[in-house]
Amino acid sequence: VRPVQSVGWSADRRALRILDQRLLPGEVRYRDIASIEVLCEAIVTLAVRGAPAIGVAAAIGIAVAARATPHSDFPAFRRWLETTLPHVRSTRPTAVNLAWALERLSRAASAATSVEAAVGVLELEAQRILDEDRAMCEQIGRHGMLLLPPNARVLTHCNAGALATAGIGTALAPVYCAAAEGSIARVYACETRPLLQGSRLTAWELSRAGIPVTVITDGMAAALMARGDVDVCLVGADRIARNGDVANKIGTYALAIAARQHNIPFYVAAPSSTIDATTVSGRTIPIEERSAVEITRVVGEFPDGIDVWNPAFDVTPCAFVTAIISDAGVHRPPFDFAA
Amino acid sequence: VRPVQSVGWSADRRALRILDQRLLPGEVRYRDIASIEVLCEAIVTLAVRGAPAIGVAAAIGIAVAARATPHSDFPAFRRWLETTLPHVRSTRPTAVNLAWALERLSRAASAATSVEAAVGVLELEAQRILDEDRAMCEQIGRHGMLLLPPNARVLTHCNAGALATAGIGTALAPVYCAAAEGSIARVYACETRPLLQGSRLTAWELSRAGIPVTVITDGMAAALMARGDVDVCLVGADRIARNGDVANKIGTYALAIAARQHNIPFYVAAPSSTIDATTVSGRTIPIEERSAVEITRVVGEFPDGIDVWNPAFDVTPCAFVTAIISDAGVHRPPFDFAA
Repeated sequence: VRPVQSVGWSADRRALRILDQRLLPGEVRYRDIASIEVLCEAIVTLAVRGAPAIGVAAAIGIAVAARATPHSDFPAFRRWLETTLPHVRSTRPTAVNLAWALERLSRAASAATSVEAAVGVLELEAQRILDEDRAMCEQIGRHGMLLLPPNARVLTHCNAGALATAGIGTALAPVYCAAAEGSIARVYACETRPLLQGSRLTAWELSRAGIPVTVITDGMAAALMARGDVDVCLVGADRIARNGDVANKIGTYALAIAARQHNIPFYVAAPSSTIDATTVSGRTIPIEERSAVEITRVVGEFPDGIDVWNPAFDVTPCAFVTAIISDAGVHRPPFDFAA
Repeated sequence: VRPVQSVGWSADRRALRILDQRLLPGEVRYRDIASIEVLCEAIVTLAVRGAPAIGVAAAIGIAVAARATPHSDFPAFRRWLETTLPHVRSTRPTAVNLAWALERLSRAASAATSVEAAVGVLELEAQRILDEDRAMCEQIGRHGMLLLPPNARVLTHCNAGALATAGIGTALAPVYCAAAEGSIARVYACETRPLLQGSRLTAWELSRAGIPVTVITDGMAAALMARGDVDVCLVGADRIARNGDVANKIGTYALAIAARQHNIPFYVAAPSSTIDATTVSGRTIPIEERSAVEITRVVGEFPDGIDVWNPAFDVTPCAFVTAIISDAGVHRPPFDFAA
């Protein structure tokens, strides 16, 4: 089974087409998005999510909105683009792929001298970002599968699969490649509170692809490792600092500590666009804090007088990372991702 | 505000009265239980939960059922008791307080020579177990509060509070005692998936007592420690082996590893009845596995082909435990709880 396509163009290429991840696994519904407002809402509400997929979605979304813009004079169009890019950028502060994709659009459009030329160039660049994302996933898969033992039992967190990219995923790319050779015994998917991307998304896309998957709660991972049931940990990243510190879904750091305790390799897989050489270390990565409702919702009525802390990401210090797998290859410590 | 009373006798002492914890925090409803079948159902479904509270509830529940038993001849009554005790015991395999309470009932009744005498002795013993549990909680609180720094920021897991005992709790007893002297800055309550005892129960009982509490997901604890926001970890226990290995709610072990990584003291608080000198180490503690539905429920429709692992407890090796706080005092490693 081919992994699902979660982000791309609509058939007439007038809209961004996304698989609405808020409805999974109960409902598989695609949505066509043609306006910046709807694009931003889709990103903020996690209808589209996963650092690479957000970058691709933003690029396509802006390209189709540019095509539909009513501005026929070029200065007005440029002003529209100059306000639109930071507006879209502000939707998710932690992931760096979004900033990177928008920067590529900005640079591509900078040489244009007409609305028509700029729109054409934006569409071309968005397509390139999509194509490159797919290729990067494949390369991550090829590099990463060499790190997996035969019949690997892989623990992963959140969703860094086909649903988080335009291709076969980042953390799950080595899993798909190894599974194609019959070499994946099982994937353990941490459910990933509060938004359950593991139990809702990773479990869904892996089971759909016929790969054995077991869902556990986040607090069970260390106990699973203690049983000897995990060969490797494999997670994605939303931003990797120059020194190899990794910002990823909240809960990743706890897994890295537990993996170290049990001598289990802890691999981070991400496209090169996730590496931010201008961020010296994880300490300066902004961590998005999200609504308390994401946590309290499952309880129903949450009494007054109870506080909630809901950071979307944490930072795993580079010392806990066995290797970083990118499209460029396998990076081992000490990490130094120069600009 | 006095901590809530979660388990005791009904006003006419003809029933066990419990606060139904399945309905919290949305609804505060007490239930009177007078039959063994309903008692077992209440324990299995976690209407009453927490190792000490289960022991107390079982003792009172059996005493009131004994009073109501139709057996007027003593041999028939003894046979009833001899089948009832193991039946109740089988409801929760991990907690040792339940077995301990039932053993006390069995021993107390063994000298009786009439139904009336046996019933009287069972009632007396159940009351003793209740009174001793309250006293043990107070002593744990007094011993434990000395381990807390001024204005302590305490991280706890699951619920080891008033809702888990007949008194002021085990892990939360030092918190209540220190809070009475104005020395608790904040309690961080891990929500404790899958059954959310932290966000449903601990947050409720602490906020009700006016103690500042912040709910986090289990995966956030390590990130919170990395920020320097946790002074001590304080958890309960369902069984403590002779060597100091601690079986407690799933997720405890992950917290212990993270606490060690951040040089944060990791304290386990439990009444002496939780210490099982006949269990040499954690390796032989049976770990209850519960229904997958407890995990999948929050996702709604869970597609076929996805496995779930749902152990209710994990074992934290004694090497990760800074000290064990019991009613007898503060125990430091190396632990050796001789019979």
